[in-house]
Amino acid sequence: MIDNQKRYIEIINSTLAAQDFLDKPAELFEPITYTMALGGKRIRPFLSLMCCEMFGGDIKDVLYPALGYEIFHNFTLIHDDILDQAEIRRGKETVYKKWNTNIAILAGDTMFAIAYKYFFKTKTEYIIPSLEIFNKTAIDVCRGQQYDMNFETQENVTIEDYIEMIRLKTAVLLGACAKTGAIIAGTTSENANKIYDFSEKLGIAFQLKDDLLDLYSDESLFGKKNGGDIISCKKTFLFIKALSLCDSHKRRDLTHLYNEKNISPDEKINNIKNIYDSIGIKDITELEISSYYQKATKSLQYVNVDEDKKESMYNFGNQLMKRIY
Amino acid sequence: MIDNQKRYIEIINSTLAAQDFLDKPAELFEPITYTMALGGKRIRPFLSLMCCEMFGGDIKDVLYPALGYEIFHNFTLIHDDILDQAEIRRGKETVYKKWNTNIAILAGDTMFAIAYKYFFKTKTEYIIPSLEIFNKTAIDVCRGQQYDMNFETQENVTIEDYIEMIRLKTAVLLGACAKTGAIIAGTTSENANKIYDFSEKLGIAFQLKDDLLDLYSDESLFGKKNGGDIISCKKTFLFIKALSLCDSHKRRDLTHLYNEKNISPDEKINNIKNIYDSIGIKDITELEISSYYQKATKSLQYVNVDEDKKESMYNFGNQLMKRIY
Repeated sequence: MIDNQKRYIEIINSTLAAQDFLDKPAELFEPITYTMALGGKRIRPFLSLMCCEMFGGDIKDVLYPALGYEIFHNFTLIHDDILDQAEIRRGKETVYKKWNTNIAILAGDTMFAIAYKYFFKTKTEYIIPSLEIFNKTAIDVCRGQQYDMNFETQENVTIEDYIEMIRLKTAVLLGACAKTGAIIAGTTSENANKIYDFSEKLGIAFQLKDDLLDLYSDESLFGKKNGGDIISCKKTFLFIKALSLCDSHKRRDLTHLYNEKNISPDEKINNIKNIYDSIGIKDITELEISSYYQKATKSLQYVNVDEDKKESMYNFGNQLMKRIY
Repeated sequence: MIDNQKRYIEIINSTLAAQDFLDKPAELFEPITYTMALGGKRIRPFLSLMCCEMFGGDIKDVLYPALGYEIFHNFTLIHDDILDQAEIRRGKETVYKKWNTNIAILAGDTMFAIAYKYFFKTKTEYIIPSLEIFNKTAIDVCRGQQYDMNFETQENVTIEDYIEMIRLKTAVLLGACAKTGAIIAGTTSENANKIYDFSEKLGIAFQLKDDLLDLYSDESLFGKKNGGDIISCKKTFLFIKALSLCDSHKRRDLTHLYNEKNISPDEKINNIKNIYDSIGIKDITELEISSYYQKATKSLQYVNVDEDKKESMYNFGNQLMKRIY
């Protein structure tokens, strides 16, 4: 089964490496080539290929739409990095930083268009259904990004608000990748919807895990210092959940601390971690992650294919859940 | 025939007015609603409707793709206004100015996705061919915008460079609108290509006319002062052509003047206009416009439909060419 995973990644990476993103003018297409060469885990196209094969499809048919999703994902990163003023991505300078904001806006727009182009390269009968899912998903991802921006200044963000934000910003795209693989394999719409649900719930669990690992991970493995979300005052699951569980006294402390500027980063992280620990936020978050992962696997149970075909999916989910950095 | 034009515009405007662009979160969709309500000449959907009917199609079939083009065009304006730091559009504040740059980036991205959605609302057999034209055109428009940005700092911009830039930035979109109308009417690919050529050449003539009217128009009719392009140091057809025709002495003067900062706007415009007048740049530009308009009408002659059906097209072209502000 691990061999299958290696095979998918090899196909994705070798096909991506064979794409020529360069066109004229170079000023527009060099940042695109740069971004696509930065790497990344390629989880989205991976999911499309795996789903397609699970339902007996030929991965050749889903390969280009799968790459379309990867290109789309990379476009969102280029624009998100402008919005967040993030200077480093995957260890290298972000596009707006390396070139400038105008080029990053326009290169992103161009990649968004290029992503669509890849959906035309599947069997004719699957082009429209694939494009419709992709298109709806693209709008939802933008909606999620706007919610995320709103939360920066919004005072009362509930857990429900937060889950809906990460669902839109991160999880629906995984759902769409899976569903596209299923549709192109020609399976039933029931199966396609169940595998969508599996991937969407897995996506939520994945993002919650991200929030957790930002503070509670082995720094030597994670490769960066814990507490980045606290330093950038991000309203994560940990923070929102902690606020909702605090008594009024602690709530005031936590709110005050989170926005405190006149304190060293290490002290800020430590003080907030102490509050989190006193509530047991690590266990609470792990429970929430498990709960979404259980919802995911429940959907997978209802998928109507031989159980042994689901093995890759379970393995994939378990791997995402087990990651410790 | 004028009645037909009124009818097209009425259908476009009433259908646009009936669209509900609002969704959640409001912060994302209010700028979209605002932009789509700003008006404009609606030339692009107009061209789609007119072409569709010329080839015997039902305009109901092309209406939504036509609106898709209008939405796309408005998306490009939102992002272009960020790139150009333009604060006013159609007499109102631009999106990035009224809200902020982050919202303008994200609202633009969302509109780009919404534009695609409109292409799904035509007869099934025309969805893919329409989307393919739209998609290719969207990439070309981005390329044109990048060339335009490059020209700001590029020293030697030739007339050929400039024409290629306005072809990509402006003209191909008109071509695509026309061709989509033709395809959805079910005409031959020869006809569809000829009407594309007509509209593309007309688009180039239209943009050259824009350059001309920026300096040589009746200010009382134009509603704004002449010479805006000179003040913002834009490399227009007038400037590039004048440079290419000057002797080395005048060329130095013109280059120097164009970048001069320590001079009143009125004096700068007057001095440059004097150089232009000494070369006869107004007549030269008018000749170039005529030449592109003749190429356009030549393509229209080759379109294989009854001559009386072409009347709307000729009228439309003549109107664009006759505009004096």
